[in-house]
Amino acid sequence: MKLEDLLYKKSEWLRGTGPKSNIVISARIRLARNLNGFSFFNWAKPKEKEGILNTAKGAIDKSKFMKKSLFLSMKDLTEIDRQFLVERHLMSPEHVIDPEYKGLVIDDKEIVSIMVNEEDHLRIQVLQSGFNIIEAWHMCDEIDTDISNRVTYAFSSKWGYLTACPTNTGTGLRASVMLHLPALVMTNQIGKVFQAISKLGLTMRGFYGEGTEAIGNFFQVSNQLALGHSENDLIDKIGGIVDKLVKREESTRSILMAKNKEEMVDKIWRAYGTLKSARIITSAETIKLLSTIRLGVDLDIVGNVDKIQINELFILTQPAHLQKMEGKLLTPNQRDYKRADLIRERLKGEK
Amino acid sequence: MKLEDLLYKKSEWLRGTGPKSNIVISARIRLARNLNGFSFFNWAKPKEKEGILNTAKGAIDKSKFMKKSLFLSMKDLTEIDRQFLVERHLMSPEHVIDPEYKGLVIDDKEIVSIMVNEEDHLRIQVLQSGFNIIEAWHMCDEIDTDISNRVTYAFSSKWGYLTACPTNTGTGLRASVMLHLPALVMTNQIGKVFQAISKLGLTMRGFYGEGTEAIGNFFQVSNQLALGHSENDLIDKIGGIVDKLVKREESTRSILMAKNKEEMVDKIWRAYGTLKSARIITSAETIKLLSTIRLGVDLDIVGNVDKIQINELFILTQPAHLQKMEGKLLTPNQRDYKRADLIRERLKGEK
Repeated sequence: MKLEDLLYKKSEWLRGTGPKSNIVISARIRLARNLNGFSFFNWAKPKEKEGILNTAKGAIDKSKFMKKSLFLSMKDLTEIDRQFLVERHLMSPEHVIDPEYKGLVIDDKEIVSIMVNEEDHLRIQVLQSGFNIIEAWHMCDEIDTDISNRVTYAFSSKWGYLTACPTNTGTGLRASVMLHLPALVMTNQIGKVFQAISKLGLTMRGFYGEGTEAIGNFFQVSNQLALGHSENDLIDKIGGIVDKLVKREESTRSILMAKNKEEMVDKIWRAYGTLKSARIITSAETIKLLSTIRLGVDLDIVGNVDKIQINELFILTQPAHLQKMEGKLLTPNQRDYKRADLIRERLKGEK
Repeated sequence: MKLEDLLYKKSEWLRGTGPKSNIVISARIRLARNLNGFSFFNWAKPKEKEGILNTAKGAIDKSKFMKKSLFLSMKDLTEIDRQFLVERHLMSPEHVIDPEYKGLVIDDKEIVSIMVNEEDHLRIQVLQSGFNIIEAWHMCDEIDTDISNRVTYAFSSKWGYLTACPTNTGTGLRASVMLHLPALVMTNQIGKVFQAISKLGLTMRGFYGEGTEAIGNFFQVSNQLALGHSENDLIDKIGGIVDKLVKREESTRSILMAKNKEEMVDKIWRAYGTLKSARIITSAETIKLLSTIRLGVDLDIVGNVDKIQINELFILTQPAHLQKMEGKLLTPNQRDYKRADLIRERLKGEK
């Protein structure tokens, strides 16, 4: 497997399947782990950083779960390749910065990805399509246990797993669910939802996680703290809240369809018409319009496209993906043309 | 010929042919005439009004130019039918008000229309596609001469033809040219053009003439006064100015295409995509988008549609036309759906 192979592959989480996939794009479990006997990455000297990278890589390579995997050394990648991996949600935007001694291991289905030397020595991530949070947790747990057979994690009987940032200390777990909530946005309920979520000890973020904007009505709900509860409790809690959000979004969609069907249908078809015709389009407008069409597919208004096509376009129209497809660097303006060309081609739009 | 026959007929002025038809939609000549021995219409008593109507009708009916014509008594028409005739530019919006004793005669090609008892006893109008102002003038002149063989016009050797409103006194002539000036609008030159036009003793108005708004970048240029110059001089003057406007619009289009081609192409295709997809659309948005596509056809950007289709849509999507096609009254909301349906059907858009 090579990095280039990913370009025309559909990531597992883009399949648009799984429970509640009309609203839940994906569920992700991430475990933060550090190796005993080493400083945290940001405190470590170069030699120690290299030691962490080699030790972690060795332990991951031998895992039965990572037999068909690809190891990527961050420093050997181009800027575009790194951005490409962020766009595919295989690593965090932070992992791009200061690439020296940083690595990424991904399995061939792009379900498992392990960042080495991000903030913590290991960040084990499992990403599943739809509301498969428990499945993702079990898988992540097994991989973690398997790796722990070959390394010793930094662990305190009082605090649990020790991590660079205290918010991760304890279980080291972050469960995140990516939701598509256009009806809650349209009806101005999303503000209240934000408030309620934060009172419950969860956070809601944009498309690329922490610090990113919510574009296209996509929201990522995650736990804020990893301490004081068991993994199962944390997952149960977030699962319960997501369940409520899904029900709320569903009932709001029904109300909108009962009361404002024509306006909804018009809005959705106009989005489709624009994507099929535009010659220049920004990434932000693309995500906004694709989001509208996704709703149209979910509501059986648009039958000409399926959810996989739309999910794929979300990823392929992003800057690094466009540039990798073209095989060269493009200015933002050039990307806006290429993006429009790609969308028209995929949606069989105006020539 | 019946009124209903007009609905699916293409008016002469919509053919999109004639000189400079890329910019000049139509040229119109209108002559205001009053019958000697009768009061002006608005001063006349009912009995006298009836006398004017009958005298005028008799003189028009016998004209060799109006052999295949249709006489319509305003009071016998429905509100929708009257609006329908205004939308087709066969009569003025004012002719709808107080329909008693008002009439309209139109020839079968919709080139000639004669309003009886609008502001003046006779308003003889010839409407041609493209920049055929001289042709329209000759035709109108011949019809006028022909009618004058059977009636005596109110005429003063000092003032010329006498009319209800002094702005028409003299020749009784109004020459109007309908122009499509999207490039001058886009480049914010239209304000200056307005000023220059008015200094030259001409006026610039919207799509339906006096007192109407300029929508879709359509502007009607007419002479302000009918006195003090011969008909030929008036027509020469307006012809010369329109010629300059056409050249200015053409050169601005060339500059835009040289400097902003991609943005133009994008804007034009987006307009096309929206019209092919929308489920609800107002008349104002329709005219705006059709105007953009018309520019696209003129610039050879859009090849899928022709100018006749677009010209036809301009007329068919208007309220009275939609209601006549449906054969019943529609609320504004219902019209917005029907309009979108009709456009998608005509442009072979999304089902």
